[in-house]
Amino acid sequence: MSHVMRCTQCGAEAVINMPQHRLKLCGEHLVAWAAKMTQKAIDRYGLFTRDERILVAVSGGKDSLALWDILQQLDYASEGLYIHLGIDHEGYSDVSQEAAQRFADERGLTLHVLNVQAAYGKSVIEAARRRRGGRTCSVCGLVKRHIMNRMAYEGGFAAIATGHNLDDEAAVLLMNTLHWEGRYLSRQAPLLPAIHPRLARKVKPLVLLYEREMAAYALVRQIDYVMQECPYAQGASSIYAKGILNQIESQSPGSKHQFYLGFLRARESGLIASDGAADVPPETCARCGQPTTAGDLCAFCRLWEMAE
Amino acid sequence: MSHVMRCTQCGAEAVINMPQHRLKLCGEHLVAWAAKMTQKAIDRYGLFTRDERILVAVSGGKDSLALWDILQQLDYASEGLYIHLGIDHEGYSDVSQEAAQRFADERGLTLHVLNVQAAYGKSVIEAARRRRGGRTCSVCGLVKRHIMNRMAYEGGFAAIATGHNLDDEAAVLLMNTLHWEGRYLSRQAPLLPAIHPRLARKVKPLVLLYEREMAAYALVRQIDYVMQECPYAQGASSIYAKGILNQIESQSPGSKHQFYLGFLRARESGLIASDGAADVPPETCARCGQPTTAGDLCAFCRLWEMAE
Repeated sequence: MSHVMRCTQCGAEAVINMPQHRLKLCGEHLVAWAAKMTQKAIDRYGLFTRDERILVAVSGGKDSLALWDILQQLDYASEGLYIHLGIDHEGYSDVSQEAAQRFADERGLTLHVLNVQAAYGKSVIEAARRRRGGRTCSVCGLVKRHIMNRMAYEGGFAAIATGHNLDDEAAVLLMNTLHWEGRYLSRQAPLLPAIHPRLARKVKPLVLLYEREMAAYALVRQIDYVMQECPYAQGASSIYAKGILNQIESQSPGSKHQFYLGFLRARESGLIASDGAADVPPETCARCGQPTTAGDLCAFCRLWEMAE
Repeated sequence: MSHVMRCTQCGAEAVINMPQHRLKLCGEHLVAWAAKMTQKAIDRYGLFTRDERILVAVSGGKDSLALWDILQQLDYASEGLYIHLGIDHEGYSDVSQEAAQRFADERGLTLHVLNVQAAYGKSVIEAARRRRGGRTCSVCGLVKRHIMNRMAYEGGFAAIATGHNLDDEAAVLLMNTLHWEGRYLSRQAPLLPAIHPRLARKVKPLVLLYEREMAAYALVRQIDYVMQECPYAQGASSIYAKGILNQIESQSPGSKHQFYLGFLRARESGLIASDGAADVPPETCARCGQPTTAGDLCAFCRLWEMAE
């Protein structure tokens, strides 16, 4: 008696079981299905069109490289951006850059690399260290957003795409919900519009896909990605929240999906208020020209001045 | 070297540590503190006044008996209501009635008892069994609400008080949030106003107290309560949700408190919409005179007709 799991679509040996979709898929059909779900997210949330150039923020991890791979499959005009943050632990930043570069080279794709130390005189870690009370992850997020906006603007890209999957978004949503963080709850979305001429639209085309689906996709497509997590992410609340959600998911398949998509619908229906603040146009930073809501200088330029 | 935990207020041996309040309390101070928190909830949410008569719905469990005990401590005019549901498993309903009666007798309090089988010709369990697809817990909830409203109306009580504690409310909130149940999210509250002449106000004076605080309170006050859970509640999603929340709480003390009270504030601030439907006055049931939103007969009378 055979216990081989069979692909729902063709009967070949399946590589993944997705009880929340009542689907088991072989490698070939998983690749096609992940592309279809990505296309669905692009269409449903109006992320971008085939006339636009997309800058994919790649970290060297499975999600962002798989996203880039899928956008190529779907014939979108995309280039990559790798930001070298200067994280030395086990050569994290160097190893990640190599993985991203190898991925691009093997496929003849264009990868832009920005080395924070080389471009700005110090690494993110140094900047975070000199800033009193600044948690590394929040400083890093700030720096990455600044650089992504700069590179998108200078390269004339219409949108910046990141590899956030459904688990990432559901984890952030759970943390924000446990604290009823109004500002975040009213904004978290697959698309953040460009509300300033120097800002690019931010899009998350993988929001309909689970993390384990992305891992299986990367495996099937033989994407040689970095498995190591960022050493600074250890103990991050988002990792904790993912564990909680996976527990809920295993008790009741589809819970993560329902939680995140139900949230988007609840905001659309008016159950959760949308953020009026997003409609107020930001000012322009006197130093870098990017938007600021915090005075003359944007948060990035203030950080860099402080850390000088 | 002594490892005895000391009361923050008097230095005596403490019986409970409440890290979320940075408090350790001895029995005496726990009793006073629980009463103070109950008074705080009564005042903050405008639950009732000392001129009003309160009907306490007692199940024989720790929360409802402790609530009754606290209301006596605080000099509110309260009487009890025990509803015998006809749950035979290990004599659940009989044992619970005895505990409630003993509690009342020992303190010279008035307990009203309504036996569903005697009053309506069949038990809740029989009614649920005859109703296709009706889950026992939802049928039971419906019957209890009907009877509480009837007894409060006939006895001229201003409000019905139930022993829901913060863990109960946070668990229901988590389930409703995971599904973004708009109708429930816009209504869940420590006070449900009487929106029909035959409805009593529903109030939950223990919403600021954790379940483990109530258990310690019952122990200190030597309340002889029924520990057995209702046999039909096994595997209920609310029990599962409590486990999840306790995990989050142990990781980050105060999370349950913050989650539930943050939710109430979020609704007050308009982040979450309030239910407009509550403003529409209901119709009156042609058979029992209680409100109905579902046609000529209320849900209770339809259930009873169906089960005849």
